[in-house]
Amino acid sequence: MHSFQELTIQFGEHFAKEHFPEKPKKLYDAASHILKIGGKRIRPILALMGNELFDTIHPDAYQVGTAVELFHNFTLVHDDLMDKAPLRRNQPTVHTLYGDTAAILAGDVMLINVYEYLNKVQPQYKQKLLAAFNKAAIEVCEGQQIDMDFEEMEPEHVQYDDYVNMIALKTSVLLAASLKMGAIIGGGSEYNQEHLYQFGKNVGIAFQIQDDFLDAFGDPEKFGKQQGGDILVNKKTFLLLKALELCNGTQRSKLKELLATNPEDKVAQVLELFHDCQIDQWAEKEKERFHDLALEHLEKIAVLSARKQPLIELADFLLKREH
Amino acid sequence: MHSFQELTIQFGEHFAKEHFPEKPKKLYDAASHILKIGGKRIRPILALMGNELFDTIHPDAYQVGTAVELFHNFTLVHDDLMDKAPLRRNQPTVHTLYGDTAAILAGDVMLINVYEYLNKVQPQYKQKLLAAFNKAAIEVCEGQQIDMDFEEMEPEHVQYDDYVNMIALKTSVLLAASLKMGAIIGGGSEYNQEHLYQFGKNVGIAFQIQDDFLDAFGDPEKFGKQQGGDILVNKKTFLLLKALELCNGTQRSKLKELLATNPEDKVAQVLELFHDCQIDQWAEKEKERFHDLALEHLEKIAVLSARKQPLIELADFLLKREH
Repeated sequence: MHSFQELTIQFGEHFAKEHFPEKPKKLYDAASHILKIGGKRIRPILALMGNELFDTIHPDAYQVGTAVELFHNFTLVHDDLMDKAPLRRNQPTVHTLYGDTAAILAGDVMLINVYEYLNKVQPQYKQKLLAAFNKAAIEVCEGQQIDMDFEEMEPEHVQYDDYVNMIALKTSVLLAASLKMGAIIGGGSEYNQEHLYQFGKNVGIAFQIQDDFLDAFGDPEKFGKQQGGDILVNKKTFLLLKALELCNGTQRSKLKELLATNPEDKVAQVLELFHDCQIDQWAEKEKERFHDLALEHLEKIAVLSARKQPLIELADFLLKREH
Repeated sequence: MHSFQELTIQFGEHFAKEHFPEKPKKLYDAASHILKIGGKRIRPILALMGNELFDTIHPDAYQVGTAVELFHNFTLVHDDLMDKAPLRRNQPTVHTLYGDTAAILAGDVMLINVYEYLNKVQPQYKQKLLAAFNKAAIEVCEGQQIDMDFEEMEPEHVQYDDYVNMIALKTSVLLAASLKMGAIIGGGSEYNQEHLYQFGKNVGIAFQIQDDFLDAFGDPEKFGKQQGGDILVNKKTFLLLKALELCNGTQRSKLKELLATNPEDKVAQVLELFHDCQIDQWAEKEKERFHDLALEHLEKIAVLSARKQPLIELADFLLKREH
């Protein structure tokens, strides 16, 4: 059994290689750039942990881990282009450095390479792995489209449950599928796979709530981002949507006015409104609700409790972080 | 044994269905739009013919056919966006109708769906089918990048052999891989698969030469496009690159001047230069050279000649067309 910290180191060493040929240079420089920007490599770690929940780690779990990490990076390249984002982790995004065309093509070629890695696994579970992966991959695209559709809507017209569903598709199903693919390799039963999937999905939603919470209420020095960055650009977040629902008529009008007029002290004023509506307390509770849901699913998985410990610790690490 | 006309009808009926769910509406309307624009469905026909060269058609060949047709349409969506093309087959392109974001996402979700169809085939040849497909798919992206790189270069700096290689990657390898994937399903040996692949690759290059030829010298009424459309936009074609190589110094200077100055009668003047340099005759010969190469590879395939007849007829149909 390995802690997620140990697996992070092991996968990091496995993943630290050139993933692409040299030519065409622009195409593969663009694809390599996003990988060099780095990241927590959380999805491959989940694949390894999903495997180890049931059995010792099979080399195929590393192939699946590489596949899901490449897929995640493909989504970052295309999402940054769609969002016209200039920076990611304080480095220029792919389309900023290499242009829109190379960003589209680099994403495409990364997505195809995902399936090269999935094609390396043993044949007996290839069909199930591909099915689990494709379902999640399609849902990620659907989630991104729904997010783009929401962008064009007034915040008060976006229903909270629809927003949770969008977040689940856009960010959580890939975490869930990574765990499930690991479980397939580890020989977990379909019952166990499903509960592990639900564990991952609920942790993912809780993670996003935490992310929104930190953007508003986190210590900017620890979080490493400008406080209220989401508020500044009127981003639809768990906090904003719930505030519009929970606050009283006067507060709601004030909040909508702030979104529309963009005064200089918008962040401070919105944060004050969030406090008045107790959105910070609500967010803590909502995060715990999804965390608890996740743990209930983990509880139901029929393996010795000790095997679940790394997953419990990982969820704690992700959901109790301050940055 | 079926003629390619019969297979066109059979695949057409198989493919005429809704390929995507209803929601998110914008995403799947965008993806459906490109399929409704239509096309010759040449790649799936090649998959069916590759299968039937060796054995009766297995239902899996239809899954592979659907996969390669979806892939081809994914490339059209992303290429049209990169080229900023307003029209395809006289209909608005996907990004024109649905915006850049939906075009990127629709392409992405189509590419993932390709692998859903490939995952439906029997397990015993899944590994080989995926490997053959992934190789071609990666090469198509590489070809598109090289094409984009050439766009930024002066025509006289693009070497003819590099241009042929780009065309092979961008358009021919998918035709070749479609045949090969059919051959894998039909149980063709690796020797036979390879020669069938080379048949398809060379037909593909000859097809592109014919396309460039028709744009310049075809009957615009039959071809359905403006004569000299490629010349008008200084598109690098087989004809232009070879003309810059074959013509004398005076002609070359004149040609470069025409490209740079864009006079009103540019098309007529460039065509006259092409005639003077006998580029029309060269193109006919060059097309036949690749056609003959293709037939040599077909010759080497160890099956009864009668089984090869539909492929010979298909190549004739594609390469002797006037539109």
